[in-house]
Amino acid sequence: MEKSGNAGTPDNKQSEQIVYGRNAVIELLQQKPGSVEKIYLQFNTSHPKLKEILITARRLKIPTGKARMEKLTELAGTAKNQGVCALITSVTYYSLDEVLANPRNTAPLLVILDGLEDPHNVGAIIRTAEAVAADAVIMIEGKGAPVNATVHKASAGALSHMRVCKVKSLVRCLDLLHDRGFSIAVADMEAEVNHTDMDWTRPTALVMGAEGTGINPEARKRCDSVVRIPMAGCVESLNVSVATGVLLFEAMRQRLG
Amino acid sequence: MEKSGNAGTPDNKQSEQIVYGRNAVIELLQQKPGSVEKIYLQFNTSHPKLKEILITARRLKIPTGKARMEKLTELAGTAKNQGVCALITSVTYYSLDEVLANPRNTAPLLVILDGLEDPHNVGAIIRTAEAVAADAVIMIEGKGAPVNATVHKASAGALSHMRVCKVKSLVRCLDLLHDRGFSIAVADMEAEVNHTDMDWTRPTALVMGAEGTGINPEARKRCDSVVRIPMAGCVESLNVSVATGVLLFEAMRQRLG
Repeated sequence: MEKSGNAGTPDNKQSEQIVYGRNAVIELLQQKPGSVEKIYLQFNTSHPKLKEILITARRLKIPTGKARMEKLTELAGTAKNQGVCALITSVTYYSLDEVLANPRNTAPLLVILDGLEDPHNVGAIIRTAEAVAADAVIMIEGKGAPVNATVHKASAGALSHMRVCKVKSLVRCLDLLHDRGFSIAVADMEAEVNHTDMDWTRPTALVMGAEGTGINPEARKRCDSVVRIPMAGCVESLNVSVATGVLLFEAMRQRLG
Repeated sequence: MEKSGNAGTPDNKQSEQIVYGRNAVIELLQQKPGSVEKIYLQFNTSHPKLKEILITARRLKIPTGKARMEKLTELAGTAKNQGVCALITSVTYYSLDEVLANPRNTAPLLVILDGLEDPHNVGAIIRTAEAVAADAVIMIEGKGAPVNATVHKASAGALSHMRVCKVKSLVRCLDLLHDRGFSIAVADMEAEVNHTDMDWTRPTALVMGAEGTGINPEARKRCDSVVRIPMAGCVESLNVSVATGVLLFEAMRQRLG
């Protein structure tokens, strides 16, 4: 028998739901693919249904990970998980159109995360974005950390107040925002303009790249405001959530006038 | 036979050294108590020498933790650890006098951490402090996270460039800094002055309190610049490393003129 169910809900997992079992996960991928954050599979995926799940997940750009049986048992809350668990989200995603149709600010402020891997950083950024009343945090489908319990916890509750969008393509998202008159900002230590000299009072989308790798080069070409956070010491970069905080609060400072 | 030795040095532990064994740790506490970051003991500390270690550590304000034997074996690299491992630091601590005698800035900028528990936050703050060329990061003996491999890693190398001090008493440290003409700054959401309206170009010591609990009330009375990071959303506070970044880069902005 295949089963699906919710994992136990200890305090730090209130935001995660797990579906396990091969047929249950196949069904989920057919019915509600958009709700699936990540699929964990056992190392040996030679079973035809596990293969099918893996291929379908790749086609849908859903992140997958290999896990030991102990991990799968922990996730599912039972050893009868048949080698697969799907993490489903309780986050309500907004479309970019919904956000732009009903902005929080006269000059909207968006934060776009291009595949950040560390859920602590993603959570801290959502918390900061909420603190400056940004209009939305935008993520790229199939890239970066899933919006899981660690993200919820690191956001310190802000995830409940912040609109989160998922877009299929960063490049198309930036093209659309550009057409709508947004300034597309990115931080780069080689830039000539300090972040405090940029005009943050315009409608602005701030793009933050993944830890270590930065943003997609095609997307990078769409950024019209390339700014430098001035550094006086030996280190060449900041933690990505700290850098985002520095930039968003400069926006806030200018917007408060 | 008691033994002491260095744990293996895989890449992510290059900054940690471990001393294990009951007599070795007692010897270490007698000879070099200042080098001990934390002592891990087995759960059952009824052995007289383990009791002695626990009592001595408490007297010296060295943090202690209970650990399972598997954890102690992993730390020591051997099961023959006799139920105790001491984590010793490879960080060279500076005295406050050394820092003040040879400052990096004409108007020195100090960051004081009052017992931060999360090593990722401590590391990210050291990285940010280095990026703004702060003069030192000051920690309180026996409070907060030890400066361990996680701190090193989260600092992204900045720990090698940043002077770190340990002081016995935050209150006495603030009294001394006050006498030397420092402005003692602290962030508080109830404050009336925005952080951007404070003068950060004076010699300044920024005190950051622990996650959740904030700073010691006696120390709090010594803070003469209480500032608010303005918040526009629903959340009431930022991640402590993000908040530190926002404040230090406001200092940087004002100091760059």
